Amino acid sequence: MFSVFPIDNGVVAPKGFYCDGVSAGLKKDNAPDVAFIYSDSLCEVEGIFTQNKFCAAPILHFQSYPKGFQTNFVLINSKNANALTGDEGVENVREVLSALQGYFSVIKNPIMSSTGVIGVQLPKQSIINAFSKIDLTKCDNKNAAEAIMTTDRFSKTIAFEVVLEDKSSFKIGAICKGAGMINPSLATMLCFITTDAKIPKQDMQELLKIASETTFNAISVDGDTSTNDTVLLLSNGQSGAYEKEAFLFALQKIMHKLATDIARDGEGATKLAAFEVKGAKTQEEAQKAAKALSQSLLVKTALFGCDPNWGRIASTIGASGIVCDAKKLEIYFDSICVYAKGMIYFDKENEQKAAEVLKKDSFKITCMIGEGEGEFVAYGCDLGYEYVKINADYRT
Amino acid sequence: MFSVFPIDNGVVAPKGFYCDGVSAGLKKDNAPDVAFIYSDSLCEVEGIFTQNKFCAAPILHFQSYPKGFQTNFVLINSKNANALTGDEGVENVREVLSALQGYFSVIKNPIMSSTGVIGVQLPKQSIINAFSKIDLTKCDNKNAAEAIMTTDRFSKTIAFEVVLEDKSSFKIGAICKGAGMINPSLATMLCFITTDAKIPKQDMQELLKIASETTFNAISVDGDTSTNDTVLLLSNGQSGAYEKEAFLFALQKIMHKLATDIARDGEGATKLAAFEVKGAKTQEEAQKAAKALSQSLLVKTALFGCDPNWGRIASTIGASGIVCDAKKLEIYFDSICVYAKGMIYFDKENEQKAAEVLKKDSFKITCMIGEGEGEFVAYGCDLGYEYVKINADYRT
Repeated sequence: MFSVFPIDNGVVAPKGFYCDGVSAGLKKDNAPDVAFIYSDSLCEVEGIFTQNKFCAAPILHFQSYPKGFQTNFVLINSKNANALTGDEGVENVREVLSALQGYFSVIKNPIMSSTGVIGVQLPKQSIINAFSKIDLTKCDNKNAAEAIMTTDRFSKTIAFEVVLEDKSSFKIGAICKGAGMINPSLATMLCFITTDAKIPKQDMQELLKIASETTFNAISVDGDTSTNDTVLLLSNGQSGAYEKEAFLFALQKIMHKLATDIARDGEGATKLAAFEVKGAKTQEEAQKAAKALSQSLLVKTALFGCDPNWGRIASTIGASGIVCDAKKLEIYFDSICVYAKGMIYFDKENEQKAAEVLKKDSFKITCMIGEGEGEFVAYGCDLGYEYVKINADYRT
Repeated sequence: MFSVFPIDNGVVAPKGFYCDGVSAGLKKDNAPDVAFIYSDSLCEVEGIFTQNKFCAAPILHFQSYPKGFQTNFVLINSKNANALTGDEGVENVREVLSALQGYFSVIKNPIMSSTGVIGVQLPKQSIINAFSKIDLTKCDNKNAAEAIMTTDRFSKTIAFEVVLEDKSSFKIGAICKGAGMINPSLATMLCFITTDAKIPKQDMQELLKIASETTFNAISVDGDTSTNDTVLLLSNGQSGAYEKEAFLFALQKIMHKLATDIARDGEGATKLAAFEVKGAKTQEEAQKAAKALSQSLLVKTALFGCDPNWGRIASTIGASGIVCDAKKLEIYFDSICVYAKGMIYFDKENEQKAAEVLKKDSFKITCMIGEGEGEFVAYGCDLGYEYVKINADYRT
């Protein structure tokens, strides 16, 4: 038994962590564009990264550290992804972090993380010039969460305190960014999770993987997998407390909230949709069909138009490649049945009710396949004019 | 040796074929919404159909004919897909075609084909009432091509005469529709091809498959695979002439033109893009990467905005799962190199030139992978506000 309480302050909720966001002049109007997370004692660190073959320079740099290295510092910049920037891009990470260590002798094995435009060399001098604004005693989670935003409409942060049966407790907190270029093939955004739990190193990667499967790997905004996707977990163990099941519960809660926040904040999105597939032949088939629904342009535009067009949903299931039969399929908008086993329930009254469901800012679309026990929930959003506007003009 | 000449009159260019489009009141303002193709002698027929598991009732009906059946009539309606309509949907096809044979005793083994909204029962009586408007001696290819349009902005038709070395000749013609719900997983639209070539039955399926691989299977508008996709080839052999290589050449030319017409007419599209991948490890990998480019929302919106954002192109290649290395990759907009082997050629002058390329109504984006000999060209279009408008409001 354990209890979990929501608390404030995101990544600096756990003991011994500090953070802030400062301006390096990458964004307009002195908005914060460089964030740091610092721990006053060394942290174990684990990450999961994009599966894009052209992963960004800061990820390549992370992977150049020896296995099992410890760190006490993460530097994050927005506006520039430092991806597809060749050897020069990796060298730029080294130079920035080396200058950082020259500035703050307390920093050990710093990690960098970047998000923004692909294929432009890092404005390293601007970032280095901003080091003078970094105060390692600051605990400004709001500034840090805002500094890492790109096309995000709102900042994303969350933290929990977990109290174990023996009354010992630990904290876990996170900041996260992501709105476009989101696809469920892996990490799909930047997320930094801190904890003072005394988690064994070997549990970190295992629990991150389990938790990501139903959270960050279950969301889609546009089906494109970024070059920079990163989830980092930093633990300094300062609470002395840990219990595996409790930690996984809290980690999943954190990652689920942030993942659905990202889907809800999908570029141009006006609503969050949960695509639930039940009764598929296997869990893999349920996942395949649910993700196909979350990625279908015809489904996403119908949601935008509040059109309960179940034909497009059925068609997407049929095209997803899973075992299915129109005579077993059932489709629901929240609790409204619109199609069941070859019978169309789509009279004017149900159409009205289903359209009402789609006017809510979040809802669930359920497809019962009737072939087995496989289940999966994928999260997505609608696609409207704003998505086109944002992405047709991104670099200008 | 053979010669190929473009000719007029689409499906009625070959000897012995007749067609027309009439109004059954499914579309507004008496616009033609029911088309027929009739041959005055029996035809061999072969088709390729959607791989969507919930394929439409008329396809199920086609498949209920005995293998090797001959026909002389195809009836096509727009506005209603007759898909996901259960046993009643198939029964409706039977009733309509049986009424048709009652009306015209000359019709043998008629085929039906439908396109439009999914999940609504066929307005069979309206279609049957329109039989009185059908005149089997008509040769109005324009009316027929217009009757099968849904969101198409222009009708799609083409025909060739093929003159063989011995001066014998045959003709081949087609009409086609398709603009949304287009995905390269199979036939992806409705296409009716007629010929008076004396093609052996066993060549028909083989040549259709070869020709579709680089044409209808290489286009994408929105990545959604329709329930109704159909390519039908009807041959009445009346010319007495045939030569396999010449027929394949003409068939490929016809299908390539119609496939690129569909991509160009993508819902809301303003331009046609050829995505060429060269030097992939295998042909399959080239196809995978080229199709990924043609389906990436971030690439499609950048094209709409005339933004030569090569970073999104590189990122899509990297995410496609093929063997690739940023230090070997080269990217071109037509002949303008923007990225080569880790060097970014994207100075202001090249940016200007690349943006000019994207302002044309068709262009080629080439990615050289540098890993082998695999090549493929996929065709797609940009995605703009109109796509959202059309698909958010389709049923209203």
